[in-house]
Formats: sequence, C-alpha cells, structure tokens
Amino acid sequence: MERVLTAKGQATRQRIVEGAAGLVRRDGVAAVGLDDIRAVTSTSKSQLFHYFPDGKADLLLAVARYEADQVIEEQLPHLGDLTTWRKWQAWRRRVIQRYAAQRDGCSLSTLTAQLGLPTEERQQIVGDLLDRWLDYLMKGVQALKDSGEIGTDVDVRKSAVTILTAVTGGATMLVATQRIDYLDTALTEALDNLRRPRS
Amino acid sequence: MERVLTAKGQATRQRIVEGAAGLVRRDGVAAVGLDDIRAVTSTSKSQLFHYFPDGKADLLLAVARYEADQVIEEQLPHLGDLTTWRKWQAWRRRVIQRYAAQRDGCSLSTLTAQLGLPTEERQQIVGDLLDRWLDYLMKGVQALKDSGEIGTDVDVRKSAVTILTAVTGGATMLVATQRIDYLDTALTEALDNLRRPRS
Repeated sequence: MERVLTAKGQATRQRIVEGAAGLVRRDGVAAVGLDDIRAVTSTSKSQLFHYFPDGKADLLLAVARYEADQVIEEQLPHLGDLTTWRKWQAWRRRVIQRYAAQRDGCSLSTLTAQLGLPTEERQQIVGDLLDRWLDYLMKGVQALKDSGEIGTDVDVRKSAVTILTAVTGGATMLVATQRIDYLDTALTEALDNLRRPRS
Repeated sequence: MERVLTAKGQATRQRIVEGAAGLVRRDGVAAVGLDDIRAVTSTSKSQLFHYFPDGKADLLLAVARYEADQVIEEQLPHLGDLTTWRKWQAWRRRVIQRYAAQRDGCSLSTLTAQLGLPTEERQQIVGDLLDRWLDYLMKGVQALKDSGEIGTDVDVRKSAVTILTAVTGGATMLVATQRIDYLDTALTEALDNLRRPRS
C-alpha cells in the first residue's frame, strides 16, 4: 500500500527511483546497494526509508514498475497516435531503432530476471504493461478500420496481439542472438498482414 | 574442443548431462553442485572430470546445448514433417500444449539466464537452435507452396520468421504472465496469414 505523497514528496521519490534505475541498468541488481543509491540521488538514509520503508526490495519493486512505464514511454508519441498507415510505419521504425540501440535487452526483463521478483508481483507488473501496450495497438488497428485503410473484417484484438507478439518475440531473439532481423521481419510482416484480404 | 569418445563414453557423457539437466531444471543452477550430479548419475569424481575437465562450467555448457536440442526434440516428429496444412495444425497444437504444460518457461532460457553464460557462447547455442528451427519451418512453408496449399507468392523466409517469432514472443509472454492466449492467438494468426492472398 503506497502512502499519499505531496507533490514535492512525489518528485523526491521519483528522483530516487530514476537514480536507482540508472544504477541497476549499469551495474545490475546484485551490485547496487542502498548507499550507492543514496550517493547518486543525494538522499539521506532517513529520506530513503521514508519513501521505501522496506528498503531495497521495496525500492527495486518501484524500479521494476518504472522500467515497465519506460517501455511505453519510449514508444510515445507514436504508440498513442496510430491513426494512419504512415504513423504505424513511423512507430515500427521507432521500435526497431529503439531495440537496435539497446541490444543487450529490455531493461525490464533483465531487471525482473535479476530481481527474482515474487512471481505474483512480476506477473502483475508485466501483465499491466502488456495490457496497456495491447490497448494502444488495438486503438490503432481500430482507427485503420474506421478510416478504411484496412478491411472491415480484420479482427482488432487478434491483429493487435500478433503485432505485440512480433515485438516481444523479436526482442527476445535479439537479446539472445544480437540479430535485429527477426524483429524487423516479423513486425513488418505483422503490419503488412493487416492489409491482406481475409479469406 | 571436445575429444572423440567411444560409443560407451558418449553414452556415459550423455547420462551425466541428462542427469545434470534434470537437477538444474528442478533446483536451479545455483543449487546444484558436482556432488549432487555425481549422486544422481552414479559417477565417480574421476569419471566426471574425464568428461568435463573444466568441472561445473563445462558441464553446464553441455546442459545448455542439451536443452537447446530438447526444444527441437519436443516438437518432433511434427516439426520435421510440415508437408500439409493439417500437419501444420497438428504442430501448432503440439507447441501450444507443450508450452501450456511448462508455464514456468523454457528450460533453455531459464538456464542461460541463470548461468550467466558468456555472451558469445549463449549467442552461439541459441543462434544455432533458431537456425535449425527456422530451417524446419522454411521447409514446411516451401512444401505448402509446392503442393499448392498456399500461394506461390508467399515469401518462405519471411513467413517462417514470422511463425518462429510468434512462438518465441508467445512463450516470453506466457512466462511473464502465465497466459497462454498470446501464444495461441499469435501462432494461429501467423499460420492463417499463410493462406491470405498477398496484395
């Protein structure tokens, strides 16, 4: 249960989370201690425990939520405005560019793997992320249907799931092999399939 | 560089690898010691070091290769005989059933994550696996083209990559959320797209 914070309190908390996220990205969960986090965020021990009473575990959970938010943030504004075919293509390029620049993988998946987060909490964080992501994609597919850029018989949810899976699968294979072409091919195909006639 | 082993030597080595894989699946890499592996495989210390001179690291690498082979094995015979639409559907069902039964994830990805395998070795093991897997899928798509079950204008490689990505992405999301429907929807769509007219 998170307490209600003032605007200033929220800003401080956010600064601590972002500082911790940066350290965890750079050095890995195991190598980051509360003292390191205090040093980069210029916070006192009592401040840290004010915002994160359970200490490191508490803070790392907040970092995981932050990284989940970042997955969406990094795709904005494109992801929030998939209203034309051209905008879908711009989003596709953005996704490929983003993953190509970050070959060692998704900070979120690295983090949740390193954390050994309790299954339930990990499922909730990742599940929420996928739900939000899918929602953006569904809105985008629906917009193409509404404007007549794709057929009225396209199944919005199935198509959005297919596009999302192309990204997660392509990213998984990128991390494992350092090859971006799986992601590029699968995502391009998933979008092209939107325009193919259903039989 | 692996030495050439006699048939008996190969069988013993294989028994050690399979025993170690079983332990690692059950308890995780960190919890498994060489003594545990010796106990379940009934081998002496000198036997173990005969086959794995570098000890645990060496053996775990062999376990990772074994688990990569298992990913293919578990899809056979279906994956090796994707010559008709019906056989593709049987493979699809097999894949979904297999992942549904193993929700905690792919032994291979869990293992490579836990191992902290050197990047180069992990890339080679996973890269080889994906190449073999893709090869089976490409042969299957080509067979459908040859028999006229799908259009002659289907791009074999792109389609096979899309199908493979649906599986890896669906499996990734299954592990993260325990939900099988991403995999089911994405794989079903990827196959259905084979039969849609290109524009």
